[in-house]
Amino acid sequence: MPTNKQIHLDNRPQAEATAGNFKLVTTETPALKEGEVLVRHHFLSLDPYMRGRMNDAKSYAAPQPLGQVMQGGTVGEVVESRNPKYQPGDKVVGFGGWQEYSVVAGDQPGALKKVDTTHVPLSHYLGAVGMPGVTAWYGLVKIIEPEAGQTVVVSAASGAVGSALGALAKVRGCRAVGIAGGPEKCRYVTEELGFDACVDYKQHADAASLAKALKEACPDGIDGYFENVGGMVMNAVMLRMNAHGRIALCGMIAGYDGQPIPMAYPQLLLTNRIKLQGFIVSEHMEVWPQALQELGTLVGSGKLRPRESVAQGLESAPEAFLGMLKGRNFGKQLVKLV
Amino acid sequence: MPTNKQIHLDNRPQAEATAGNFKLVTTETPALKEGEVLVRHHFLSLDPYMRGRMNDAKSYAAPQPLGQVMQGGTVGEVVESRNPKYQPGDKVVGFGGWQEYSVVAGDQPGALKKVDTTHVPLSHYLGAVGMPGVTAWYGLVKIIEPEAGQTVVVSAASGAVGSALGALAKVRGCRAVGIAGGPEKCRYVTEELGFDACVDYKQHADAASLAKALKEACPDGIDGYFENVGGMVMNAVMLRMNAHGRIALCGMIAGYDGQPIPMAYPQLLLTNRIKLQGFIVSEHMEVWPQALQELGTLVGSGKLRPRESVAQGLESAPEAFLGMLKGRNFGKQLVKLV
Repeated sequence: MPTNKQIHLDNRPQAEATAGNFKLVTTETPALKEGEVLVRHHFLSLDPYMRGRMNDAKSYAAPQPLGQVMQGGTVGEVVESRNPKYQPGDKVVGFGGWQEYSVVAGDQPGALKKVDTTHVPLSHYLGAVGMPGVTAWYGLVKIIEPEAGQTVVVSAASGAVGSALGALAKVRGCRAVGIAGGPEKCRYVTEELGFDACVDYKQHADAASLAKALKEACPDGIDGYFENVGGMVMNAVMLRMNAHGRIALCGMIAGYDGQPIPMAYPQLLLTNRIKLQGFIVSEHMEVWPQALQELGTLVGSGKLRPRESVAQGLESAPEAFLGMLKGRNFGKQLVKLV
Repeated sequence: MPTNKQIHLDNRPQAEATAGNFKLVTTETPALKEGEVLVRHHFLSLDPYMRGRMNDAKSYAAPQPLGQVMQGGTVGEVVESRNPKYQPGDKVVGFGGWQEYSVVAGDQPGALKKVDTTHVPLSHYLGAVGMPGVTAWYGLVKIIEPEAGQTVVVSAASGAVGSALGALAKVRGCRAVGIAGGPEKCRYVTEELGFDACVDYKQHADAASLAKALKEACPDGIDGYFENVGGMVMNAVMLRMNAHGRIALCGMIAGYDGQPIPMAYPQLLLTNRIKLQGFIVSEHMEVWPQALQELGTLVGSGKLRPRESVAQGLESAPEAFLGMLKGRNFGKQLVKLV
């Protein structure tokens, strides 16, 4: 059996996560039992939600256990199978974690899914045509429910979720406005992703200043907001929300290290009769088929051209992950293993 | 024609509202034109939302104009009519404002409604069987949507909205828990209004301490929260909300004078996948008939025994109003004119 390198969570962050929280471990892949499949991972997915699970706190997901492989989405290829549904060479998406190989019970519902790479590159099943894409779809379609002509704003617009959100909003006839960090990301958001405008939050020291820039980018106000960030960015957007606006609350990365991120003006939720809804996409499996179909079509037709930041080799995963938490990635953050 | 005393808004509050913002004016009621009705007000309604309208700020309602009669709900008796639909002696509810008489165009939709005082005292049409009652109904039925056995919490529980909320929650099989200021109000909330428990927020200096008391009062957590107050009370409740909880945001009286009332832990909305919805009941006229019918039955059958704080005479309206903003009232705040 092949040697299998893994990244474990060794200890929990005190405040900011560091490389010292992780540990490289080398094992061997076990022999397959009846029904099992050995998958060689081509790409690992790195996602902001993983930071939350590193804490031992009550949240929507159980904490990542210490001394075990970091959990996460993976795409790869079946290299050995004792399950008649899978053949060596099959391309599959799963939840194999930060390691080179995984052994999967092929009959466990949802554990492994064969994917078609004719029109969609394998890695995109971890991004635009995977969990991040469906996350954008759910927040937009089920919470924001935009009408054509309305303005929809998303923070972290150049990332995996934000880029999908923009494409989904545009095909619904909305004005799509992004918020991103730095001129390069903003240029990508408008020029390559097709957003109508993008505001660089790094140019603004406080919510009032950012709100002023948003007023220019959103002359008719903001009807729907998809939140990935929280903190100052959220406060600024709230100052520009229209009556009966909707906020889909997906992430608050600004507070993942334990920083206070108070909402400055909650009274705006009242005076503007806003609906705010927190969600996690894994609780809404019923929408995945419909969402993935639309996302696959958008990518296949070139209407959604997601960008990827690809780190090389399993050992690079911790640094790539920590960089992503600081916004150093550009688009979907992956680790390439093969 | 009779002399008519009025209270005008003379100038806007700088921060806290004061008696100096109001002015007593004496006029005469004009002669009736065809279709008009002269109503003698028996009671004026004093409501927290009026404080918001005293500011010249963007909100869900237009500001109260300066130099004009303070707007507000009224109940009274028709004393003269040039409209065939109304006869002297008819008891009516309307929006006559802080004055002794009003002249109403009887055919204007929604301007005046005849009410039956056989089972429901006239004043209750300004409280439990009026706007505050429907407000509670909408937030509970349309936003919180509680299931039997769930726990519903309301702040300002002894007030007009809170008391109705408790009765409506109890008939739906919920555990109803109030938050109120002082032992006397808390005793009333449990003993007379039939709430299962009530927490005295004045016994707690911060959100953590109040949250601890709420844990005892809500052993299974909080599924629905009806917010009238904001600030520290809201922060405490959010610490005890269950996954998939719902918050109906009706008022934030803690911030009506311009005090900052940041929401300390917005990330809880995400981790607990909470839906929060701000609303104003006048935008949902379609529910009023159904809501008023249920509320009338609750009052008529004695299941809802709302308490009233009654100030005497028009001149007492400003002080009664300012006292209510500080929680000095006990139940629905009214001014009796007859």
